[in-house]
Amino acid sequence: MASEKPLVAVTCTAPVNIAVIKYWGKRDEDLVLPINSSLSVTLHQDQLKTTTTAAISKDFTEDRIWLNGREEDVGQPRLQACLREIRRLARKRRSTGDEDPLPLSLTYKVHIASVNNFPTAAGLASSAAGYACLAYTLAQVYGVDSDLSEVARRGSGSACRSLYGGFVEWQMGERVDGKDSIARQVAPESHWPELRVLILVVSAEKKLMGSTAGMQTSVETSPLLRFRAESVVPARMAEMTRCIQERDFQGFGQLTMKDSNQFHATCLDTFPPISYLSDTSRRIVHLVHRFNTHHRQTKVAYTFDAGPNAVVFTLEDTVPEFVAAVQHCFPPESNGDKFLKGLPVRPTPLSDELKAALDVDPIPGSIKYIIATQVGPGPQILDDPHAHLLGPDGLPKPAA
Amino acid sequence: MASEKPLVAVTCTAPVNIAVIKYWGKRDEDLVLPINSSLSVTLHQDQLKTTTTAAISKDFTEDRIWLNGREEDVGQPRLQACLREIRRLARKRRSTGDEDPLPLSLTYKVHIASVNNFPTAAGLASSAAGYACLAYTLAQVYGVDSDLSEVARRGSGSACRSLYGGFVEWQMGERVDGKDSIARQVAPESHWPELRVLILVVSAEKKLMGSTAGMQTSVETSPLLRFRAESVVPARMAEMTRCIQERDFQGFGQLTMKDSNQFHATCLDTFPPISYLSDTSRRIVHLVHRFNTHHRQTKVAYTFDAGPNAVVFTLEDTVPEFVAAVQHCFPPESNGDKFLKGLPVRPTPLSDELKAALDVDPIPGSIKYIIATQVGPGPQILDDPHAHLLGPDGLPKPAA
Repeated sequence: MASEKPLVAVTCTAPVNIAVIKYWGKRDEDLVLPINSSLSVTLHQDQLKTTTTAAISKDFTEDRIWLNGREEDVGQPRLQACLREIRRLARKRRSTGDEDPLPLSLTYKVHIASVNNFPTAAGLASSAAGYACLAYTLAQVYGVDSDLSEVARRGSGSACRSLYGGFVEWQMGERVDGKDSIARQVAPESHWPELRVLILVVSAEKKLMGSTAGMQTSVETSPLLRFRAESVVPARMAEMTRCIQERDFQGFGQLTMKDSNQFHATCLDTFPPISYLSDTSRRIVHLVHRFNTHHRQTKVAYTFDAGPNAVVFTLEDTVPEFVAAVQHCFPPESNGDKFLKGLPVRPTPLSDELKAALDVDPIPGSIKYIIATQVGPGPQILDDPHAHLLGPDGLPKPAA
Repeated sequence: MASEKPLVAVTCTAPVNIAVIKYWGKRDEDLVLPINSSLSVTLHQDQLKTTTTAAISKDFTEDRIWLNGREEDVGQPRLQACLREIRRLARKRRSTGDEDPLPLSLTYKVHIASVNNFPTAAGLASSAAGYACLAYTLAQVYGVDSDLSEVARRGSGSACRSLYGGFVEWQMGERVDGKDSIARQVAPESHWPELRVLILVVSAEKKLMGSTAGMQTSVETSPLLRFRAESVVPARMAEMTRCIQERDFQGFGQLTMKDSNQFHATCLDTFPPISYLSDTSRRIVHLVHRFNTHHRQTKVAYTFDAGPNAVVFTLEDTVPEFVAAVQHCFPPESNGDKFLKGLPVRPTPLSDELKAALDVDPIPGSIKYIIATQVGPGPQILDDPHAHLLGPDGLPKPAA
């Protein structure tokens, strides 16, 4: 029986997701309820994932958390909201009495350790994977099997979309208490096997405005954002769902680009204005449109979140040529052999016609590296006890 | 009698105007009718002006035009529309018979020469001043004294706002024939004597999408642009008019910045997206907001048209400190003594507090120079015959 063990530990992983219909703006800051629905693609954990171990023990005297090896303040409101919510769900399950009571007391304190397999410095949104992994891991340790959207959402809105693999929508919901603001899988990761994702990590010059503060200012000051949320997004959600269901890359790619652009437009309409795109981002936009114009069809599509990095969607057979085009326009500065990470990409020469069509002055070093990945599954439980990030003493294991 | 002279020549000047409520998008391409009203400030001709000479003679065998000394195609549609419209107005006046018939036949051909006193390479919108000057000069030569909005507008929409000094609105109008789409002075140039204008000329790296093609694509593809035109601009026109009438710089400055940002937001919402702002433009935006935050009030305000140059509004007593701040953030590269053009600016040291508050890494050379100017009058007739750009033979005089 688990209750006889001094410590129960569970380790899970969770993926990063990239929105193709963007979430920007809350209608309730506290409950993290959005002003519009959103839709995302879950990225494969072979390339990008968060791993989290949660352990509970009667010997622990307080809740504690370590992120990437460093202890952090467990009292931060978002984290507290997640812990409160998961314990509420666990109590609820217990009190309904439809299964055995939990073997370990809910009053036990929890230790949490979490690491990312990608550098935080890359500027990839890690909070979604992080809070999804936290919610999923805590659910295992406390034996909760109800919908985890709210637990993850309270940590970071878009985290609820990382609870599923494949293509995921976060329905905004209508209820004041947010009970219908939940994530739902639109299509599984096996649905569109040819789809590929390239993350172009851009050398950023300065830290940017955080998305929490940014979206709050946008809701307060941008007349265009409210219009977008109410009058543009609903039809786009339906159209994006259709494109995914029919594996219509032309439609998927164009709508992805349009929605990214509109999100950044509402940032610019914010006062003071918010600019997440850098000149390098804009050069990538330009490159993608030139590439597509050359091919007379939408073969690649960009999307940008709250930072200058581009996430590019394309189909498997276009990857080599597009990567060659990126390398032509943004020659690696010093890390030639580490420029391309993730899935292997067959080297291919660039045709003179395409080179001429791209019409750019190559700017060395403005893209740090590319991560090649694909659509992937949702959170996973790791059965191997060696995977635990916490030792039998409940403290982080020394890094290997 | 003029009719006995072999040639009648008139020379006029016209100003540049800068919109504080932006015009972007036509509801009728041919008649140049806008999807929303706009409002601008006329800049002083001591710093920026177009000079145009128009001459008619029975000896001319065809219409001809020279811009900045080079002969251009007189057949271009915009120019032809202006010529047709002014001749229509002249015929109309003649046929109403309320004054003497015109001494020179309307069938006479016209020669036109036009020069700007600022480099075209500066990327300052010269078409507004150019077409306003053309309309005004042709009106003198053909003896037309009716409203010239349509003549100027047919050349370039915003040109109708350069027909007046001070603060000018271009009422969008409702009629299908555009007869009520006219410019009107909101307040004369003497109304707000403390107002100053600084043009920050940015080193652009590439030619941009022209505004005619750009706004057409925006009208066709941006859902946000239509909403802006219909639901945002009308209230902003009223509010901007109030700010000008009350000389409320706080309100004027904030609304000017918000409307510039919203215009660029609709460009970004266009597909493919249009980006007129460069990283230097964004650094200027950042500088202005930091400057205002430091002073706890809106002391300076930026606006950007279809290019990276900033036009900054401020009051007379703030000019020296803001110019010092610009010179600190964007040190001149090699033209230290030519960095500041136009109105004299008293050199002033920058306080350490403000330097710290600006928090920027100085980037030398990204601003080419500053033109300091102010609000100015509308088009002027030059009486001095030496001012004519065309000689007695009807051809451009050699440059002095």
